Amino acid sequence: MTEIGIGILGGGYMGKAHSVAMAAVGAVFNTKPRPRLEMICATSDESAERYRAAYGFSRATSDWKELVNDPKVDAVVIASPQSTHRIVAEAAFALGKPVFCEKPMGASLEDSAAMVAAAEASGIVNMVGFNYIRTPASQYARQLLAEGAIGDITWFRGEHTEDFYANPEIPATWRATGRANGTMGDLAPHMINAALALMGPIKTVMAEVETVHAQRTGGAVTNDDQAQMMCRFENGAMGHLYISRVATGRKMGYAYEITGTKGAIRFDQEDQNALWLYKAEGPEAQRGFTKILTGPAHPDYLPFCQGAGHGTGYQDQIIIEAKDFLTAIAEGKSMWPTFKDGHEVNRIISAAFASHESRAWQDISDF
Amino acid sequence: MTEIGIGILGGGYMGKAHSVAMAAVGAVFNTKPRPRLEMICATSDESAERYRAAYGFSRATSDWKELVNDPKVDAVVIASPQSTHRIVAEAAFALGKPVFCEKPMGASLEDSAAMVAAAEASGIVNMVGFNYIRTPASQYARQLLAEGAIGDITWFRGEHTEDFYANPEIPATWRATGRANGTMGDLAPHMINAALALMGPIKTVMAEVETVHAQRTGGAVTNDDQAQMMCRFENGAMGHLYISRVATGRKMGYAYEITGTKGAIRFDQEDQNALWLYKAEGPEAQRGFTKILTGPAHPDYLPFCQGAGHGTGYQDQIIIEAKDFLTAIAEGKSMWPTFKDGHEVNRIISAAFASHESRAWQDISDF
Amino acid sequence: MTEIGIGILGGGYMGKAHSVAMAAVGAVFNTKPRPRLEMICATSDESAERYRAAYGFSRATSDWKELVNDPKVDAVVIASPQSTHRIVAEAAFALGKPVFCEKPMGASLEDSAAMVAAAEASGIVNMVGFNYIRTPASQYARQLLAEGAIGDITWFRGEHTEDFYANPEIPATWRATGRANGTMGDLAPHMINAALALMGPIKTVMAEVETVHAQRTGGAVTNDDQAQMMCRFENGAMGHLYISRVATGRKMGYAYEITGTKGAIRFDQEDQNALWLYKAEGPEAQRGFTKILTGPAHPDYLPFCQGAGHGTGYQDQIIIEAKDFLTAIAEGKSMWPTFKDGHEVNRIISAAFASHESRAWQDISDF
Amino acid sequence: MTEIGIGILGGGYMGKAHSVAMAAVGAVFNTKPRPRLEMICATSDESAERYRAAYGFSRATSDWKELVNDPKVDAVVIASPQSTHRIVAEAAFALGKPVFCEKPMGASLEDSAAMVAAAEASGIVNMVGFNYIRTPASQYARQLLAEGAIGDITWFRGEHTEDFYANPEIPATWRATGRANGTMGDLAPHMINAALALMGPIKTVMAEVETVHAQRTGGAVTNDDQAQMMCRFENGAMGHLYISRVATGRKMGYAYEITGTKGAIRFDQEDQNALWLYKAEGPEAQRGFTKILTGPAHPDYLPFCQGAGHGTGYQDQIIIEAKDFLTAIAEGKSMWPTFKDGHEVNRIISAAFASHESRAWQDISDF
Ligand SMILES: NC(=O)C1=CN([C@@H]2O[C@H](COP(=O)(O)OP(=O)(O)OC[C@H]3O[C@@H](n4cnc5c(N)ncnc54)[C@H](O)[C@@H]3O)[C@@H](O)[C@H]2O)C=CC1
Ligand SMILES: NC(=O)C1=CN([C@@H]2O[C@H](COP(=O)(O)OP(=O)(O)OC[C@H]3O[C@@H](n4cnc5c(N)ncnc54)[C@H](O)[C@@H]3O)[C@@H](O)[C@H]2O)C=CC1
Ligand SMILES: NC(=O)C1=CN([C@@H]2O[C@H](COP(=O)(O)OP(=O)(O)OC[C@H]3O[C@@H](n4cnc5c(N)ncnc54)[C@H](O)[C@@H]3O)[C@@H](O)[C@H]2O)C=CC1
Ligand SMILES: NC(=O)C1=CN([C@@H]2O[C@H](COP(=O)(O)OP(=O)(O)OC[C@H]3O[C@@H](n4cnc5c(N)ncnc54)[C@H](O)[C@@H]3O)[C@@H](O)[C@H]2O)C=CC1
Repeated sequence: MTEIGIGILGGGYMGKAHSVAMAAVGAVFNTKPRPRLEMICATSDESAERYRAAYGFSRATSDWKELVNDPKVDAVVIASPQSTHRIVAEAAFALGKPVFCEKPMGASLEDSAAMVAAAEASGIVNMVGFNYIRTPASQYARQLLAEGAIGDITWFRGEHTEDFYANPEIPATWRATGRANGTMGDLAPHMINAALALMGPIKTVMAEVETVHAQRTGGAVTNDDQAQMMCRFENGAMGHLYISRVATGRKMGYAYEITGTKGAIRFDQEDQNALWLYKAEGPEAQRGFTKILTGPAHPDYLPFCQGAGHGTGYQDQIIIEAKDFLTAIAEGKSMWPTFKDGHEVNRIISAAFASHESRAWQDISDF
Repeated sequence: MTEIGIGILGGGYMGKAHSVAMAAVGAVFNTKPRPRLEMICATSDESAERYRAAYGFSRATSDWKELVNDPKVDAVVIASPQSTHRIVAEAAFALGKPVFCEKPMGASLEDSAAMVAAAEASGIVNMVGFNYIRTPASQYARQLLAEGAIGDITWFRGEHTEDFYANPEIPATWRATGRANGTMGDLAPHMINAALALMGPIKTVMAEVETVHAQRTGGAVTNDDQAQMMCRFENGAMGHLYISRVATGRKMGYAYEITGTKGAIRFDQEDQNALWLYKAEGPEAQRGFTKILTGPAHPDYLPFCQGAGHGTGYQDQIIIEAKDFLTAIAEGKSMWPTFKDGHEVNRIISAAFASHESRAWQDISDF
Repeated sequence: MTEIGIGILGGGYMGKAHSVAMAAVGAVFNTKPRPRLEMICATSDESAERYRAAYGFSRATSDWKELVNDPKVDAVVIASPQSTHRIVAEAAFALGKPVFCEKPMGASLEDSAAMVAAAEASGIVNMVGFNYIRTPASQYARQLLAEGAIGDITWFRGEHTEDFYANPEIPATWRATGRANGTMGDLAPHMINAALALMGPIKTVMAEVETVHAQRTGGAVTNDDQAQMMCRFENGAMGHLYISRVATGRKMGYAYEITGTKGAIRFDQEDQNALWLYKAEGPEAQRGFTKILTGPAHPDYLPFCQGAGHGTGYQDQIIIEAKDFLTAIAEGKSMWPTFKDGHEVNRIISAAFASHESRAWQDISDF
Repeated sequence: MTEIGIGILGGGYMGKAHSVAMAAVGAVFNTKPRPRLEMICATSDESAERYRAAYGFSRATSDWKELVNDPKVDAVVIASPQSTHRIVAEAAFALGKPVFCEKPMGASLEDSAAMVAAAEASGIVNMVGFNYIRTPASQYARQLLAEGAIGDITWFRGEHTEDFYANPEIPATWRATGRANGTMGDLAPHMINAALALMGPIKTVMAEVETVHAQRTGGAVTNDDQAQMMCRFENGAMGHLYISRVATGRKMGYAYEITGTKGAIRFDQEDQNALWLYKAEGPEAQRGFTKILTGPAHPDYLPFCQGAGHGTGYQDQIIIEAKDFLTAIAEGKSMWPTFKDGHEVNRIISAAFASHESRAWQDISDF
């Protein structure tokens, strides 16, 4: 059993989630290589030390270069803001260190292109953090689609909706500025990635992007609150995506509906342990959507619990990511979703912005 | 208590529904004028007579003119194909007889414009058959929105999805040809009308219309199987509509979600006795969507049952329409939704087709 | 097409429902004999006349004997309080007139026994009003069970819960006194009948009956607010029933769950158009409860609507009853549920009260 | 930050769950004392070593005494069969070592009484493993009830239903024999504990216990497959509990409904991130059950995720237990639920068996 020294950038929302995941993943998945919480980095020495103590790392730093260069740090997890993703990833690859990077990949299409280039040039293992697609339910949905269980796909509808900015009285923070921090930068990547994972490539998009509340206490809002896009997939299916941070009442509205000629699938992350499947077979009088509770029969569930319906949660998605990242490192071969997949998402976002600006359909191949 | 002789055109799906409604409405709503099932018309003498006997009319005919001209027919219900709507309505208005016409209004924008003109010129009572919006739940949703219960509206999503043509093996019938018989002609009117009723006027649309299964046993399919459109409402809200007759698994997918700054509303006709309401008030820990079961506290429910949650059904929507039609006749004043409302719906459909063809946004004011 | 003159006792909650049903049933079901709203009876001349006008009867009376004896009244519907059921039914049978009687049958076990005796002695058509079991969903559940679709039955749980008396501030009315007006008298019959219809006979019961709010404005409450009973069915299955009029939040909680060795069924009247079916077959990963929306494939649905998922409501249950009552009359042969079935329900209620009083299991055969 | 050496007995279902919990809890909750995975024990040296390596313990043994006596083992987690609970707990208390013991407490009422006595005599920290009550949703339900949010409680219904033994073809294993391994021994403790936690003490019970499938491949079944009991709580409320391992279709049917004079609560573990709350206040037209998604506003949620609706899972319940156990150790004071609470559960189980045998109500005070 080899040990892998882990260095994590960021100790906030996702920095913590990845720390917990690295602490737990070995026991959950009996991973070959075992992570060792080596070093954590945050903006100040004080906060870095606080995170170190809280999450159980050996050392702390406020200088990401120190972390990346440290000889005991064998692999890097980037859980800091999008502006940091590229420079850190490039430095890590240069040293031959595998990188896990939170979504979205970098702060721009340029960033993600450069990150893919660096990853591919180096040949080092890389992975991007699309965690919601990791639930046993969504993994199983992918499997069903790959097997053709619902026939030829004719329609996809996806949304990623939350309401943390629904109330216009909520003050403007860093979230209110910067394209990469709007809904298209922050939330859309998850659902676009889901669309690609479930449906395959998108060909064209027609989008609308909007700032609903242009003024908040604390300043103007210069990025988007909600966006929608019609799209056409390469498999021929029509599609629609909706993204919002002002969707009053929605807490984790990562949801999709997929229609095929022989069935349909529905999923809503707010009940992440259920997948709804309709199959156009058997007696008409007994047809309907079946509410499947995830269990040992579904991907990556059993290591968490032997009983169906007992349920996995948000943190478990991150543990599954950690397992795949460690496995990729052990096998020396990147696993889905790689930086390339993160970049594909960014291409669609760029096309969507272009569509919004031109008020016209855009081909993804132009981005 | 006055009696009103009712003549109904068509004895099929909707002809029957209106016949039953006219038989029941007096007892349910204690309507001032009482309908008398005077005459029914269908394409052949034989079928007309069959319907007469089945539904309890006094007389039958296969000639619509006979029905319209009959002195004992005081009001006309048009439940025959779209191609017949205009000519019958014009004839009835010419004789000063009130007309209830099934959706969609006529077979084209030209038809509905002419029908509105005839109605307005004559000043005779007219109504169009958008029944789904008549449920106590959707009526209450309209009321909530009118009162501003969920604040300023920022997003509307509506769909009308069924799956009667999902299986490509289902043979082509008359449904497979004629713009007015595709999803945009047949199903979209209900949801567009809902959007207008709930949200107010639409300003612009950007649409895609598609024939999914171009070939069926029995011939080519020349009209649309599914369609979607992004739209912008005059109140500023962003919106999206999706219409499909190939939505495998969906039986009565007339569903909408409306987001406001202070709350949200969700509804799905497949559980027509429930309205889901979220209000951004009270302790955070107790917020969520409330599943309201319709009952005597909601519009037009009590006459059907004194107990909440006991439920109304499809046929009851038609009875509610009949009540409003009779009331309008008694008061000599058209009630919502009038031919004008039916025509508004057709304008949006025309704009959507134009948008699809031009692959560009279209202003409704151009139609 | 023969006409049957209908006389209805009572113009309240159920008197109205049956009046509407008789007005509509012919058109809905194309019944052979057609009902004619001949006479309605209520306690005062004034109210009887009011009901007559509202529901469309020819004549009104405040004397039930006049109604029963009237030569143009061919069949009698008893929708007046339990205390009136027996005497009216006996009189009607004596005249050879078919009787439909609302649940519960009479005000006591003695009453219902006498009613069965009178019905059987006369050989006249009789039926009792258990409407909830008439939904297409519950009829289909019965069919599934009869076919053994879920294997051998091991468990039944049923409830009939409402909340009209949940608030202790609601004043005492006639509902607050008289065994036949408590939950066991008023609500339990529906669910006991459902249990028998779905599961077959009950062998033994062990019950608890309780007055939750013994005092209300307006006086003492002397009958029961809630009750529960464990039971054992003759098919060997264990069971439980719960009845309440103080079930805060429940509006029409007529709900059951049935478990078999090969599947399970769940139903809740608050969403009366859905039946949930689990079948222990097919790949484990695709198992779950299927939400079946009622449609033309289910009993008695098609006459109301050609589209699945469009839904039936409370009033439609009464129309279905009317259809069966008319059919029974036409065929001169009683149809389920007869007075005998109403009496079976009363036997179980009596056994339950005895069990409550003795705090011991009671065999139904002793009642 | 102090370290606590943890010794775990058992490496199966729950042994693993507690190992993962101990690996993760520090990072999740920033616990003062930090657990160190010191030693794991299983029946054979080989399996113990396997678990050690998999979960990340320092040492392994097949002799529980070695584990309990080991000076580096500061606290003991018992996740081995019920027959081992008592002897191990007594040994640990004798050495002054805190004990966490899985449910049910011991193999009999005698066992649990002795365990409580040993715990209280020693004064050492003790806790019993009722994990399902640890979800943020159920913790919040307890809080709501404690605050009187739904008024005086009138009714409680709870069930713990699974279907792992529903198919009679499933062979008999150790589960099929021994009272402590039947549904009353194995599953009932969770729901009885929930009933006590939510409602307070139970006064009397009337129960039925049953072996549905007396024969399985591999031998006779000598313990119970399902059981039900009516009960009366000391707060005056009526109640019912149902327990089954043959509940076809139910995967994690730990569910309860609680009715009060001012509201109601519903919960089903199969959607463990939702709590349904009805409050009899505000406009009638807006009342209904609110589906509350758990989030940072609810107990023990925030450390897992900053976003509401993102969800916790089964494993997280065990992490919450570990946090409380460590906190209790740090504070030198047992926290709920203690051995005493585990014993209270056993008293009710004993009363239920006695009731079943005597076919009579039993007072809990007699046990
Ligand atoms: N997969 C998911 O569900 C989510 C992903 N994210 C992504 O995770 C990343 C981090 O976001 P959050 O954790 O929400 O942010 P956060 O604001 O909670 O934490 C950011 C952390 O990064 C550190 N940091 C900032 N600049 C740094 C620098 N130059 N060098 C080293 N550390 C630095 C901060 O000290 C802080 O600890 C972002 O890329 C975001 O898009 C965020 C939330 C959810
Ligand atoms: N509101 C709703 O939910 C629905 C509305 N509709 C609308 O109702 C209308 C009728 O549709 P369905 O009832 O489904 O059709 P259908 O095919 O079931 O029945 C059509 C009836 O019209 C009669 N008819 C046809 N041509 C006629 C003519 N020239 N003169 C007199 N009678 C004629 C036929 O004999 C037949 O009885 C259409 O406008 C349709 O769009 C249809 C279904 C549902
Ligand atoms: N199947 C179901 O879902 C329901 C059944 N019921 C049953 O229907 C029956 C009537 O109950 P409701 O309609 O709720 O009562 P209600 O109080 O609404 O109406 C009772 C009617 O009976 C009339 N009436 C009373 N005494 C009479 C007499 N001696 N002669 C003639 N008319 C008399 C009254 O004038 C009144 O019109 C009862 O047996 C009740 O248990 C009631 C409600 C629901
Ligand atoms: N809280 C919950 O949700 C659950 C609780 N449990 C409880 O957890 C306990 C363990 O059950 P499972 O993990 O399902 O059993 P299991 O059969 O999966 O594992 C039992 C473990 O105990 C070990 N063991 C057996 N006898 C031993 C001995 N004398 N000394 C040392 N180790 C010994 C075995 O080697 C094995 O590793 C039981 O008390 C059970 O009731 C079980 C499942 C779920």
